[in-house]
Amino acid sequence: MIQFYSPDITETLTLPESDSQHCVRVLRMREGNELSVVDGHGNRYHCRLVDAHHKHAAIEIVEREEVPLPWTQNITVAVAPTKNMDRMEWLVEKLVEIGINRLVPIKCHHSERKEIKTERLEKIAVSAMKQSLKAVLPEIMPMTPFADLMRMPCEQRFIAYCDPSIPRRQLSELYIPHRDATILIGPEGDFSPEEIKTALSTDYQPVTLGDNRLRTETAALYSASAFHILDSLQPM
Amino acid sequence: MIQFYSPDITETLTLPESDSQHCVRVLRMREGNELSVVDGHGNRYHCRLVDAHHKHAAIEIVEREEVPLPWTQNITVAVAPTKNMDRMEWLVEKLVEIGINRLVPIKCHHSERKEIKTERLEKIAVSAMKQSLKAVLPEIMPMTPFADLMRMPCEQRFIAYCDPSIPRRQLSELYIPHRDATILIGPEGDFSPEEIKTALSTDYQPVTLGDNRLRTETAALYSASAFHILDSLQPM
Repeated sequence: MIQFYSPDITETLTLPESDSQHCVRVLRMREGNELSVVDGHGNRYHCRLVDAHHKHAAIEIVEREEVPLPWTQNITVAVAPTKNMDRMEWLVEKLVEIGINRLVPIKCHHSERKEIKTERLEKIAVSAMKQSLKAVLPEIMPMTPFADLMRMPCEQRFIAYCDPSIPRRQLSELYIPHRDATILIGPEGDFSPEEIKTALSTDYQPVTLGDNRLRTETAALYSASAFHILDSLQPM
Repeated sequence: MIQFYSPDITETLTLPESDSQHCVRVLRMREGNELSVVDGHGNRYHCRLVDAHHKHAAIEIVEREEVPLPWTQNITVAVAPTKNMDRMEWLVEKLVEIGINRLVPIKCHHSERKEIKTERLEKIAVSAMKQSLKAVLPEIMPMTPFADLMRMPCEQRFIAYCDPSIPRRQLSELYIPHRDATILIGPEGDFSPEEIKTALSTDYQPVTLGDNRLRTETAALYSASAFHILDSLQPM
């Protein structure tokens, strides 16, 4: 099944330019053909093409289907973006497939990358949402200073870092399934002592992801996987 | 810490050409400098450079340290390689970081890729081993026909596939921590009915990885992560 994406489908009744092009030029769909369109807000629309225009294909909605995410809590991954953007792009694709609600790129003291263009990451998120047959688009936030993240509330907040001098417990021991969770992953150069102090005094729980040394993007994906795997042990 | 790799260090007392170049040309190490060399078999050698030759740097061994993997069982990931080699290369890097013992590329009935050059994947595995500070190099097997995989014994064997007509349980419910495990991930076009039949009659347990539709490489990584996360809940 191929999904198209149109965030304001009910108002415009057209596909955006890139999806129109894909629909009409690549897939050669014609008037009367049926197609699925998701809005990124949890709805899938079963539609019929009424004008096969390659820039603004017009559709009519046959039926709306609610497609909630297969998990109920809010999962936020906050991560200091890697210097290499390919690794961030890869991470976004995989996080969307495995399942998160929000990605927060964090500007830390030791960040190798202080700016990020979220537009490209959003495109990748849209593509991964379509491909993994979801109808909810995770939020990709702009680069967020560490201090601002500290002010975002969440039921359970974890900080994964490398400095072994502060006692840490396994993420799997601390995480309470099916509850809102934020995991914070630092830059390759780790958090600064001040950042760690701030996080610990803001009810972030220090965790370890095991004895393997993981790259930033691997740690982020591993943590999101852990939430879902631990959820699966406790049916709701 | 930077690790060099020399599989037969104790015999040759030199670094291979690529590592010699990295050591001497890139890092500009000189005679007398100390360096760490792993052999891929679980040993890390603390060495001293005695000839800073850019093609065959000679070293003397100061001390040998045993660096076993931080898990005790054998973890095998068997996966039908994706058409896009970038995705396979990415998978190898991430599997080595997160931790496996063996990767088996599988030739299935619906495989999009029937041949694979393991040399390039091995290089990536070496690089990921060094970067993640491991001293054991996972085995990258050559392309293996599905029938040959069926003959490889393992304490617990799982097959993840998409056809929902056969009842499946969550991998997390079935996996017994700290025991040898093999997970088999099929091609994008899924296993053939005959392959599923063969696997089920060869004591492969059919599993689901949850309600998300994952790409082949994402499913493989997610499964390996699941083993480690579930292990972490049950200290040995």
